[in-house]
Amino acid sequence: MSAIEGQANGQTGADALISALADCGVSHIFANPGTSELDLVLALDREPRIKAVPVLFEGVASGAADGFGRMTARPAATLLHLGPGYLNAAANLHNARRARTPLINLVGDHAVAHRRHDAPLTSDLNSIVAPQSVWVRDVAAAREMADAAREAVHTAILRRGPATLIIPADAAWGGCATSGEVTVQVAPVGPNEQAISLAVDKLRAARQPAIFVGGRCLQERGLEACARLVQAGWRVIAETFPARQARGAGRFAPERLTYFAEMGQTQLAGTDLLVCVGAKAPVGYFAYPDKPSKHIPEGCQIHHLVAFGECEAEGIVMLADAVGASTSVLPATPAAPSQNDGALNRESIATAIACHMPADCIVSDDGVTLSGAVIAATASAPPHDWLCLTGGALGQGLPLAVGAALASPGRRVLALTGDGAMMYTAQALWTIARLNLDVVVVVAVNRSYEILRFEFARMGKSELGPAGRDLLSLDSPNIDYCSLATAMGVDSVRCSDSREFGERLRWAFENRGPFLIEALCVP
Amino acid sequence: MSAIEGQANGQTGADALISALADCGVSHIFANPGTSELDLVLALDREPRIKAVPVLFEGVASGAADGFGRMTARPAATLLHLGPGYLNAAANLHNARRARTPLINLVGDHAVAHRRHDAPLTSDLNSIVAPQSVWVRDVAAAREMADAAREAVHTAILRRGPATLIIPADAAWGGCATSGEVTVQVAPVGPNEQAISLAVDKLRAARQPAIFVGGRCLQERGLEACARLVQAGWRVIAETFPARQARGAGRFAPERLTYFAEMGQTQLAGTDLLVCVGAKAPVGYFAYPDKPSKHIPEGCQIHHLVAFGECEAEGIVMLADAVGASTSVLPATPAAPSQNDGALNRESIATAIACHMPADCIVSDDGVTLSGAVIAATASAPPHDWLCLTGGALGQGLPLAVGAALASPGRRVLALTGDGAMMYTAQALWTIARLNLDVVVVVAVNRSYEILRFEFARMGKSELGPAGRDLLSLDSPNIDYCSLATAMGVDSVRCSDSREFGERLRWAFENRGPFLIEALCVP
Repeated sequence: MSAIEGQANGQTGADALISALADCGVSHIFANPGTSELDLVLALDREPRIKAVPVLFEGVASGAADGFGRMTARPAATLLHLGPGYLNAAANLHNARRARTPLINLVGDHAVAHRRHDAPLTSDLNSIVAPQSVWVRDVAAAREMADAAREAVHTAILRRGPATLIIPADAAWGGCATSGEVTVQVAPVGPNEQAISLAVDKLRAARQPAIFVGGRCLQERGLEACARLVQAGWRVIAETFPARQARGAGRFAPERLTYFAEMGQTQLAGTDLLVCVGAKAPVGYFAYPDKPSKHIPEGCQIHHLVAFGECEAEGIVMLADAVGASTSVLPATPAAPSQNDGALNRESIATAIACHMPADCIVSDDGVTLSGAVIAATASAPPHDWLCLTGGALGQGLPLAVGAALASPGRRVLALTGDGAMMYTAQALWTIARLNLDVVVVVAVNRSYEILRFEFARMGKSELGPAGRDLLSLDSPNIDYCSLATAMGVDSVRCSDSREFGERLRWAFENRGPFLIEALCVP
Repeated sequence: MSAIEGQANGQTGADALISALADCGVSHIFANPGTSELDLVLALDREPRIKAVPVLFEGVASGAADGFGRMTARPAATLLHLGPGYLNAAANLHNARRARTPLINLVGDHAVAHRRHDAPLTSDLNSIVAPQSVWVRDVAAAREMADAAREAVHTAILRRGPATLIIPADAAWGGCATSGEVTVQVAPVGPNEQAISLAVDKLRAARQPAIFVGGRCLQERGLEACARLVQAGWRVIAETFPARQARGAGRFAPERLTYFAEMGQTQLAGTDLLVCVGAKAPVGYFAYPDKPSKHIPEGCQIHHLVAFGECEAEGIVMLADAVGASTSVLPATPAAPSQNDGALNRESIATAIACHMPADCIVSDDGVTLSGAVIAATASAPPHDWLCLTGGALGQGLPLAVGAALASPGRRVLALTGDGAMMYTAQALWTIARLNLDVVVVVAVNRSYEILRFEFARMGKSELGPAGRDLLSLDSPNIDYCSLATAMGVDSVRCSDSREFGERLRWAFENRGPFLIEALCVP
């Protein structure tokens, strides 16, 4: 519907918003609307350029928009029902903000005049949305909706994170004209020549410098520049949990920063300069008594190459050019692992994945204690993209897979998850089934929050007593992940044998549509 | 462990906090801890007076604490993992705040020195927790933990809502002595004589006054005063969605305020004074174009009988005494409905529940379009407590049932839910199975967000198109609630016939332990 027709046909603010989002290239909205969002639902009915995707729980919407944005660098949107709807989405928005993913939240609110009555669903929305958003606009009236849409798209792309629109019901139902088609152009631009020269000077002056790369440096173009830098003798280290990394055979695999800060101290011992490109200065996930918070040694200088709004992928290419790193020679691809037999465990799961992962696979990783083994095993697997858990909020894996699959038609998505992590947002299975997405879910079942047992042991505490063991265990009753998949329309199988797991995984990748494998890693 | 032993044995701040909570009467903590909460887990191991209840998702923890607090007027606690853990709990905390339920959130955070490094799980916790909390304390050090616990219990009871403690990991792991046993006394007190006299004068001066009651006025003691007031000729109207209402045979059933504001305008036509006792002035759930936001007619005066910190149940008793309302005559109990045959629908579900509900049942109501029929049908059912959805955030029903069951050993809990509402926090089933709680879940399945179709029709909009219908439907794939129950260890049955539903429900109530009935209301 064009703006002129809209005006003639009684266009609402909701129509203006949704049309403007479509004009700006938004193609998907992950939605769990309520009464206050019904005019937005009507507007979606009138806008064929946007696909509205239903979800059962808002954490699926935000995770899916994150997955979509990681794969396309374009924002998808969520549609959420007031404060509670936003709050249910917020843990995965925390992850999305850490991933620096462009996305747009459309949060319905009461009509402006109704807010002061403090109705049951009223909440302080501006305060609620701020912590996970890079930008917030409370849209005052229908006539502002098209402009707000354009500003949201522009800001989400430029500031790279969740841009949130609070949409009072009367701004959605009110009539309005639009100011014609709106578009958004945000071209990636790197640092200026002066900034590059300064970094080069610093690198050359340092005794033992390292280049710490993250974000879009770890996609193909940036990685090629990283390979050139390493070939020219510079040390390049990748962040531990990148939002997206191109990996596998034929691709450069930079050294990865270790998870624990005290191991990082060893890894970075002697480093006197860390030039960060698209990565924050490294810091431990958690603090521990008598252990360092930071990976970098005392006295190591931190220098950031790219500034706000500059693209790190451009930056690392410019840096490689500036130091004259001209040829990239890829390391020999390590031999592919061969399928193994016997009881299923972390390592045999990893081996099977490495054997059967198809080319161009996207891995959505919420696997916690499983992930390390799979990352190691898949170094020489066919080329693939790996999406890490960026903000530590479990329940990212399945929702992210929804968005990644929709963003990348024809590519297979592997959602790696654990029996604890999966239970935060298992509702994603329903959307996966409903849209018949090419998602294979592997849930590794060890009947516990294994990462916490590991952390507990690491802290050198006394043994856990019955209450503590109870809190960390996932047995009694054992969760039946195949029944869970059945409940939401996804076919599944349970395996406890390595060979069978490998065969089932191969079969799942050879066929289209969703499938779940419950990988029992307990005796 | 006593304070002296603790000090001798290397008591931590976590020990001091948990012991102080136990001293103050906290008996249950609903927990989903992470690395930063492991010292609190250890402390729970050493404190036999507190039961730690594991949950798979934090929204179960907050809903359970709400249910516990509604049944006991004592706070239970949640144990949550930093910002994302809190955010997952927050929608049900929104409901708890609206229910005015005392509860305590223990939110783990990074060690104070680690916060400034902006680690992946760092977030602006003080901002995040504020909107759903009546009080927040960021505990600076181990030595403050016991005092913070006491203040949290006191505040949760006095201010009646979620009191939130932010607990840096170093405040938990740090060593500390305690200041001995701490206790909290908060006795309910009503308004003073002057406030009562003023209200009586206002009521007598008004042409057409009404008394609008909510909160604890709707428990047994307050209801008896309401009955006396009505018998003495005063009009008493109850809030639409009370946190807890005593109902059923032998109990006074006050007139209930209608849901929609424009119907409220008719119900309250001519009312010139509304004396609110434990209820906020009524307001529409949502605003609609050209419809009023408020139930009360223009010019109607609002007077609040009880002030902050005063108990409305004491207030309504004092008011009844002051107007000389001395005898309460209960209305004749209407005849119990008889079980019906045929296809299952809202009305036959309601009839069956009214027929088979045991005495002292607790109903946790997240049933949305089902609820009205069941409320109507159960007026003459055996005495029971009804817990409404207070804040409009779906996903309250099953978690609330967990807490209500633990708070009320020996009583049966009926969790009423819809196929949409259930999918927000279905993870509660696992905790229900794990603790073998006496919870019967009835999920009414109509394969849609029926309330939205209803609201949509009411708004007089044009027909929904394909995208809108898609967003409001829950078919394709149909969700299999029995498989969902199986996945989490709860026995279940699917019914589509009224007689079978009645028989299964009777059987479920006659036996102990959890059971789920999927009530198919679609042809």
